[in-house]
Amino acid sequence: MLSFENDYSEGAHEEILKRLSETNFAQAPGYGNDEYCESAREKIKHACQCPQADVYLLVGGTQTNQTVIDSLLHNYEGVIAAQTGHISVHEGGAIESNGHKVLTLPQHDGKIDAGELEQYLNTFWQDPTHEHMVCPGMVYISYPTEYGTLYSEQEFAAISNVCHRFHLPLYLDGARLGYGLMSPQADVTLPMIAKYCDAFYIGGTKVGALCGEAVVFTKNNTPKHFITTMKQHGALLAKGRLLGIQFDTLFTDDLYFKISRHAIDMAGLLKKGFLERGYSFYLESPTNQQFVILENEEMDALKEKVAFSFWEKYDDTHSVVRFATSWATKETQLAELFSLLKQG
Amino acid sequence: MLSFENDYSEGAHEEILKRLSETNFAQAPGYGNDEYCESAREKIKHACQCPQADVYLLVGGTQTNQTVIDSLLHNYEGVIAAQTGHISVHEGGAIESNGHKVLTLPQHDGKIDAGELEQYLNTFWQDPTHEHMVCPGMVYISYPTEYGTLYSEQEFAAISNVCHRFHLPLYLDGARLGYGLMSPQADVTLPMIAKYCDAFYIGGTKVGALCGEAVVFTKNNTPKHFITTMKQHGALLAKGRLLGIQFDTLFTDDLYFKISRHAIDMAGLLKKGFLERGYSFYLESPTNQQFVILENEEMDALKEKVAFSFWEKYDDTHSVVRFATSWATKETQLAELFSLLKQG
Amino acid sequence: MLSFENDYSEGAHEEILKRLSETNFAQAPGYGNDEYCESAREKIKHACQCPQADVYLLVGGTQTNQTVIDSLLHNYEGVIAAQTGHISVHEGGAIESNGHKVLTLPQHDGKIDAGELEQYLNTFWQDPTHEHMVCPGMVYISYPTEYGTLYSEQEFAAISNVCHRFHLPLYLDGARLGYGLMSPQADVTLPMIAKYCDAFYIGGTKVGALCGEAVVFTKNNTPKHFITTMKQHGALLAKGRLLGIQFDTLFTDDLYFKISRHAIDMAGLLKKGFLERGYSFYLESPTNQQFVILENEEMDALKEKVAFSFWEKYDDTHSVVRFATSWATKETQLAELFSLLKQG
Amino acid sequence: MLSFENDYSEGAHEEILKRLSETNFAQAPGYGNDEYCESAREKIKHACQCPQADVYLLVGGTQTNQTVIDSLLHNYEGVIAAQTGHISVHEGGAIESNGHKVLTLPQHDGKIDAGELEQYLNTFWQDPTHEHMVCPGMVYISYPTEYGTLYSEQEFAAISNVCHRFHLPLYLDGARLGYGLMSPQADVTLPMIAKYCDAFYIGGTKVGALCGEAVVFTKNNTPKHFITTMKQHGALLAKGRLLGIQFDTLFTDDLYFKISRHAIDMAGLLKKGFLERGYSFYLESPTNQQFVILENEEMDALKEKVAFSFWEKYDDTHSVVRFATSWATKETQLAELFSLLKQG
Repeated sequence: MLSFENDYSEGAHEEILKRLSETNFAQAPGYGNDEYCESAREKIKHACQCPQADVYLLVGGTQTNQTVIDSLLHNYEGVIAAQTGHISVHEGGAIESNGHKVLTLPQHDGKIDAGELEQYLNTFWQDPTHEHMVCPGMVYISYPTEYGTLYSEQEFAAISNVCHRFHLPLYLDGARLGYGLMSPQADVTLPMIAKYCDAFYIGGTKVGALCGEAVVFTKNNTPKHFITTMKQHGALLAKGRLLGIQFDTLFTDDLYFKISRHAIDMAGLLKKGFLERGYSFYLESPTNQQFVILENEEMDALKEKVAFSFWEKYDDTHSVVRFATSWATKETQLAELFSLLKQG
Repeated sequence: MLSFENDYSEGAHEEILKRLSETNFAQAPGYGNDEYCESAREKIKHACQCPQADVYLLVGGTQTNQTVIDSLLHNYEGVIAAQTGHISVHEGGAIESNGHKVLTLPQHDGKIDAGELEQYLNTFWQDPTHEHMVCPGMVYISYPTEYGTLYSEQEFAAISNVCHRFHLPLYLDGARLGYGLMSPQADVTLPMIAKYCDAFYIGGTKVGALCGEAVVFTKNNTPKHFITTMKQHGALLAKGRLLGIQFDTLFTDDLYFKISRHAIDMAGLLKKGFLERGYSFYLESPTNQQFVILENEEMDALKEKVAFSFWEKYDDTHSVVRFATSWATKETQLAELFSLLKQG
Repeated sequence: MLSFENDYSEGAHEEILKRLSETNFAQAPGYGNDEYCESAREKIKHACQCPQADVYLLVGGTQTNQTVIDSLLHNYEGVIAAQTGHISVHEGGAIESNGHKVLTLPQHDGKIDAGELEQYLNTFWQDPTHEHMVCPGMVYISYPTEYGTLYSEQEFAAISNVCHRFHLPLYLDGARLGYGLMSPQADVTLPMIAKYCDAFYIGGTKVGALCGEAVVFTKNNTPKHFITTMKQHGALLAKGRLLGIQFDTLFTDDLYFKISRHAIDMAGLLKKGFLERGYSFYLESPTNQQFVILENEEMDALKEKVAFSFWEKYDDTHSVVRFATSWATKETQLAELFSLLKQG
Repeated sequence: MLSFENDYSEGAHEEILKRLSETNFAQAPGYGNDEYCESAREKIKHACQCPQADVYLLVGGTQTNQTVIDSLLHNYEGVIAAQTGHISVHEGGAIESNGHKVLTLPQHDGKIDAGELEQYLNTFWQDPTHEHMVCPGMVYISYPTEYGTLYSEQEFAAISNVCHRFHLPLYLDGARLGYGLMSPQADVTLPMIAKYCDAFYIGGTKVGALCGEAVVFTKNNTPKHFITTMKQHGALLAKGRLLGIQFDTLFTDDLYFKISRHAIDMAGLLKKGFLERGYSFYLESPTNQQFVILENEEMDALKEKVAFSFWEKYDDTHSVVRFATSWATKETQLAELFSLLKQG
């Protein structure tokens, strides 16, 4: 069945499969000590324009968030995130399972606000009982957010500025990073992310890889014994080459950015197609996730023929649903989708 | 450089790469809800002759041990393992990081002994202070062990018997399961493992897959909400198809067993080659890991030309080193190795 | 300096000190296995009219919440509480440090609402992604709440009813239980609490003891090996007699209730005194904590002469402050306080 | 019944009860911010001859070990201890429940050996796989040990020296510290302990207090936000005065040392009494715990009349049992004990 359910419905970009085949019988050391990982790390540092960066390749998003956050926090500290942040809601309590509270701020189209962050921190430190409360130890944002929205450079810089004044590392979840950076609306670049953040990850799973996320520590700030921390979190892949080959391929000839751009182009067509047919959107998303409002009856009928994600109830007769494009989306799939719509 | 360093030096069996390519653009749901995972689960249940089994596909060995053990233990319980068990030594404290003590028993060529296990449990329960101690909550064994050795069916049944009398789940780490089952010395079969154990995993990473381990709960005993537990441990892969396709391929036409058998045949030749050249072995291993005693000078010279693993000091002038064969080992590689030996 | 800062400013009720002296050189076994603990447990069960109850004596409130909650939850579960619940805010992340998320509901004068609880649970279980979220595993309420307010029996029964329909244990934090039960407004009794809750604790520290909280499991539902869980949480006092003697004294001749009633009487006088002098209250509290609105200037002047707790900002020129009475409050102290007020 | 079962069978030294009564109605702030705690802290720093020390008062031994160890370790680190160390065996997995492995060394009459410690650390750091293992992060010793034995100053200095060369904090569990320091065999003093250790605690529960242990960080090395860490571990007593008054009393006029000396004198008489009657000891203990070898039949008969602790099986017909004296032991009790012995 046709699917716009998410951006991990297909396998991997063909170039990746080709490289996996070509290198298959080359013998390589384990645990990320192979030449492919080394090359991938160098290319990522180059793309970030951050020669002092340290790069680590992990397997999945929740694992990456859990491992990085646990490595950056002391036990008495928590991580600040939007109420709708992935770590706040949809990671099965992975952060808490490592002993850390997720301290939530209000979300605005999925984003936190630098002013509200500052107010939260001021209130905390002025509270005479703050030693009885979880100490804010870092800030988590996602780019794009869980609603597909983007921080502007100005918003991003403001948050980074507050973080650094309060000596809090800023960590960015880039599960869909390419789809953010390649949006026409984006005024943020990968080197800016390396500049404003203390750590972030470049998502592979949702952007053309079979699996894999690349963590970047940008400020000579890699936590000591991070390899042991990865091992302890089950995040140190024996056959690290699988990750190295994939990221090396994605960061050769700008493949990561080209395929991300394709997904954005497809999202533009998808959006246009819905708008032309009179549908409205829950919010304005400039990236590959589009949140459409459907009548419940149409939603029920449509889901017999095409896969998409129920997001939330809109009102008694309408729902918000998500259609996602990806590196793999084809124009013919969009045409097929449009033909299924009421005005299609 | 030629390598016998481990059994995860190459990529994946070619059949797996072929299937990944063939299925690449088929759209599939995430998180293990795809048809490939479903097919893999069915084939594994069939191979285990255990229709009531539940099968879950995870990414790596430490992650699998951590997730399964955490799901089977109460917070006041620990896991019993050999002093040399992988979870006791080489997983960066992954089990303890989830709050559980690893309770160690002496090892005998890497194995625990049913009698010593029983004595430990009797002593514990008779100790008037046992409420102040970590309660033994399950037993962990590996097959083959970290020294490549195998439990006989009789030894295995005896351990299982003690476990069940004390109401302790028996869990088997099968990171190299195929290499155990296909050893000529093995009198244990996969269905026996399903019968004697409450849970175990079938290792993929070291037996022909890019990554992946298949957990089997055998007694209608899957912990409640195991999917959430997987998510919480970062073990729920978004693109679950990657694991499904691999295990489906490995369990089609006995591929898993055939390639395991190949590794064992290669280990037999390797052993013969060393013996013929007058080397001796640290212990008698019937599987794909062979522990050779080398003079330190020869070891140092040899490692310039071939990769292998230092295991431990033997005496002041000798070391124990490990040579591992795998599904990917070629006879030409063995010939090359032998030509590098002193009597080669 | 005169203090209404909290209800743990003094030592212990004199009867307790007397009993400690009288029994001082009687030799007793450790860890709660002494006759005083045994007697205290029996008296508490009797006061609860709950012969099947199990009673455990712990040291402090956060420790008790942490130990009980950790013992009642599976690792994939969290605890539902009001946003203002003590465990949500003021326990330094004690619940999360054991791996459990605190799932918050809106508060209404410190209370949660049965309808909102039910809606939360329905929404959770209907959410198709709920396996990726922390599973609600129990419900935490406090009586009185952190704002000194009380659930009516009807509200309490409604919450208990929702919990039991969803198979969730209901746990009540009774740090100030006596001050709730002895309020004229209370229509809830100790036996009702034992009936509606699956577990609760009777606070000693704030109601006349030097330290100590008595946990009651009411439904033959004591978690297995709870003593080991206590030990693991540092909650098993070697000299358990210290707790036993205190609770035995408090539950002899209704001392616990009599001294609680005294605090409530004093709170009534305190409230009357403020009202007569034209002050207003932040909310209507029927228990020993009274939340007064003060002009900031008066607050600053007053705190030179009497201790009280700043609670929160009311508006730009006013603050909410807390005055607490206790078992030890004397009428002369109230008179002294009133003499310090502007209209005093 | 007459008891030598342990050193926490009675209440508290009478001076403590007296001070509790005298101060009972003085109002004091909570959480250790009272004048009694402040005075106790100053007196302890003075007794340690360590003006830069930070002192914190906690409730019990397991809680103290757990809180201090968790505050000193990173998540990837474990604590080194003797196989017989209290944290290794008898704390219900409290250390592991916070995520840290206890790394065990062989014990020699309950003590670890500086040479073996150094060898362990060298082996660890030279192991090429050490990043896959739990990193040693601190060293735990007890003084006296669990067998009542004492480190000489030379042994202590040697361990401290190894620790500091490897940048590992040395932490001393002083649950029975007074009984060690006051032994005629001791050549270690409290100021030496402050000099050689990075942190330690002075046990109150077993040396005359109702409860309480005083943690001392000696090198301007108090972990940041230690109060929050205490709160998170349930170790921050609301009525902190209870601890302050007790330690203030114990460190006034050398009471702590005087009553410890009394226990040692009583242990000397006890030992003499057993020896005169032909009994032998399991090992030579110079402190308040004496380990006697009894025939099983005599042991069974004796325990009808006097309480003591079974320690371990000696051989098929004999057992090792522990008799403990304390600050509260009376000569008449010893006479009564001797009258019960076979040659009594």
